[in-house]
Amino acid sequence: MASKILPFSKEKILDIIKKYPTPFHIYDERAIRQNAQRFVKAFSILDGFKEYFAVKATPNPHILKILHQEGFGADCSSLPELIMAEKVGISGEEIMFTSNDTPASEFQKARQLGAIINLDDISHIEFLEKSAGIPDVVCLRFNPGAARKGTDIIGKPEEAKYGLTREQLLKAYKILKEKGAKRFGLHTMIISNELNEDYFVETARMLFELAVEVYKNTDIKLEFVNLGGGIGIPYKPEDKPVSYEDIAKGVKNAYNNIIIKNHLHPVKIFMECGRVITGPYGYLVTRVLHLKHIYKNYVGTDACMANLMRPALYGAYHHITVLGKENIQHKFVYDVTGSLCENNDKFAIDRKLPEISKGDVLIIHDTGAHGFAMGFNYNGKLRSAELLLRKNKKVIEIRRAETADDYFSTLDFNSVKKFK
Amino acid sequence: MASKILPFSKEKILDIIKKYPTPFHIYDERAIRQNAQRFVKAFSILDGFKEYFAVKATPNPHILKILHQEGFGADCSSLPELIMAEKVGISGEEIMFTSNDTPASEFQKARQLGAIINLDDISHIEFLEKSAGIPDVVCLRFNPGAARKGTDIIGKPEEAKYGLTREQLLKAYKILKEKGAKRFGLHTMIISNELNEDYFVETARMLFELAVEVYKNTDIKLEFVNLGGGIGIPYKPEDKPVSYEDIAKGVKNAYNNIIIKNHLHPVKIFMECGRVITGPYGYLVTRVLHLKHIYKNYVGTDACMANLMRPALYGAYHHITVLGKENIQHKFVYDVTGSLCENNDKFAIDRKLPEISKGDVLIIHDTGAHGFAMGFNYNGKLRSAELLLRKNKKVIEIRRAETADDYFSTLDFNSVKKFK
Repeated sequence: MASKILPFSKEKILDIIKKYPTPFHIYDERAIRQNAQRFVKAFSILDGFKEYFAVKATPNPHILKILHQEGFGADCSSLPELIMAEKVGISGEEIMFTSNDTPASEFQKARQLGAIINLDDISHIEFLEKSAGIPDVVCLRFNPGAARKGTDIIGKPEEAKYGLTREQLLKAYKILKEKGAKRFGLHTMIISNELNEDYFVETARMLFELAVEVYKNTDIKLEFVNLGGGIGIPYKPEDKPVSYEDIAKGVKNAYNNIIIKNHLHPVKIFMECGRVITGPYGYLVTRVLHLKHIYKNYVGTDACMANLMRPALYGAYHHITVLGKENIQHKFVYDVTGSLCENNDKFAIDRKLPEISKGDVLIIHDTGAHGFAMGFNYNGKLRSAELLLRKNKKVIEIRRAETADDYFSTLDFNSVKKFK
Repeated sequence: MASKILPFSKEKILDIIKKYPTPFHIYDERAIRQNAQRFVKAFSILDGFKEYFAVKATPNPHILKILHQEGFGADCSSLPELIMAEKVGISGEEIMFTSNDTPASEFQKARQLGAIINLDDISHIEFLEKSAGIPDVVCLRFNPGAARKGTDIIGKPEEAKYGLTREQLLKAYKILKEKGAKRFGLHTMIISNELNEDYFVETARMLFELAVEVYKNTDIKLEFVNLGGGIGIPYKPEDKPVSYEDIAKGVKNAYNNIIIKNHLHPVKIFMECGRVITGPYGYLVTRVLHLKHIYKNYVGTDACMANLMRPALYGAYHHITVLGKENIQHKFVYDVTGSLCENNDKFAIDRKLPEISKGDVLIIHDTGAHGFAMGFNYNGKLRSAELLLRKNKKVIEIRRAETADDYFSTLDFNSVKKFK
């Protein structure tokens, strides 16, 4: 009976529910900070290392502020994410702006904030120049094509819409230099939710070798290499978490063998992880509304895929703890469902759990990243609140739940009344 | 070169774009009304026929009002959808409330509005009684299990979370009768986006035979049978639209052979179609921002999966017209993408199109149902406006586009400022 540990007691959660009705996501500040510190410490063996938290994973300003306090920057991918970073007090080169198919307004805002702009395509050089001007520092996103294999979620690199080819990249640095850019970075992002440390070292090696090629071809010494994100988390209790230290040591080794050996030192190493930073430290808390027995046995919760899409979208596994029944034998098999009129609105299919009663509280684990963030309003469903379990064990609301009025906010019912 | 016809000229769209920036969904009122009238006329051969529009398909009050004017009721699946129907002036038995895993508050609102409540499970009888009381009229949702086959999207009935088994159904009618219910309905929904008319006739036959069994077992003569929805639309230009007349005639035949022959006449026939009512008459209008040539050729638009999820979620086909280039040979192959940092954010993969230039306007067809409705805010993306092309060819905005402030509306940045 594999299990996962909770940062709160049953009594604590029941107490929280009295004030904040289910469903909600709750994030564990202490664990996020401890993990962030472990992350920073492990990678501190790399000179000038900086992590830019992928805002898209958990676009909540309190979370961004916590991570900023721990020394992280923000990796933004849209205008609202740039504005959120700004409102939290993150600006300048603490923002990495990694986007694709980018509108002019987003480049303009990124320039205004002094963010590092990571260009997705060679044609974006001219577009950026016209819309916002070429900044001193520019990064380029590399797509290795068939040279790397990718994953189910992110797809094969040669079928991915992102980045420049090797030839384009070399050409792009030259053009950017001619247009006045002075400092340069290199980026790639070809993996998602990967638990094998070697993959990240392999990516670093690929980018370091490319940095050498860039230097030989263009005389440009790169200021930084952004390894992207993609570090996975142990969604299943039997999964082994990634060792930050092993990745850092592997990258350091590759750095010594390639960057230092080719006299390109110093090159700063950046990453833009999201999932591994907050994923394991968020929990979707939901109550059992209904038990249903037809051709299968169903547990109906008060949460739905509006609160967590990953199981429906990717068939992703999220561990479930039945609060207070952790030590009871898991000998019942259930589908755990939400209330959408979509049959894939299920948090778990054929999951072994202890016998469940109406009113039981379920904790759905690992919703700290790509959980709330992916929610929609299909079927008129509303998105939940987000709570923060503070270091002192107090709980604060860091996003209120949506109401029907929020759902109607872009509508004008007066105009409906007059409509004939 | 297969094509689809547009209800507006290139000039008209360019004119609209001057006032309402892309991307937006635009719905064709004349076509929606004409189709609704065709639908009503075809099914008028069935005594007491009523269509309840599936609000989830296009949850826009102007659209609901248009359909209400054409004689449709509303099929609601959540509290916000019930409130929307109420605000539009739809109430009482013009509302069918079909939900699953239902919270008490939704049953209470449905009762308050006098809606027909369609129960998803035998256990909901007691739940409804306690939370809102048993109404005079109750409908039960049937899940035929292995007796029917289902589809890819909706799944096999025996693995679907919906409805009661045959045995539960017979028992449930008896319980409801004892508890004071006086009028009864029967419902199923086991198919989605189906183009074969026979399937709907087969479903009607199954429900009519069940109505006979209900009568024999419980002495209850059903007042209505709700055949559900699920009528598909010709997403591909070569697809043949469903014949409403063929379905109506087939249902009428089955009715004569089963309901009339068993002296159960009259039984009213209801449906709750969504997609076929509005789907073909909505268009996502978007402009080409970027062209990108790496291992494949990409057309980057100013829309993304926040505006239309079906291609990313289901691999669904949506036809694309390049405005003004309808008659140019389609000899280029593109992936048409949005700007999300998700590689599945593509409206089309390997699509043959005329050569595309930056600034071209693309019309993505058949977004009138399950288009805007499924949008999310992942990556900080904002949902678009919805426009209505009126019968007189004037255009009105029936939902404004989201702003960054909408995106931030459930956040409290003052509390972020004070957060330590």
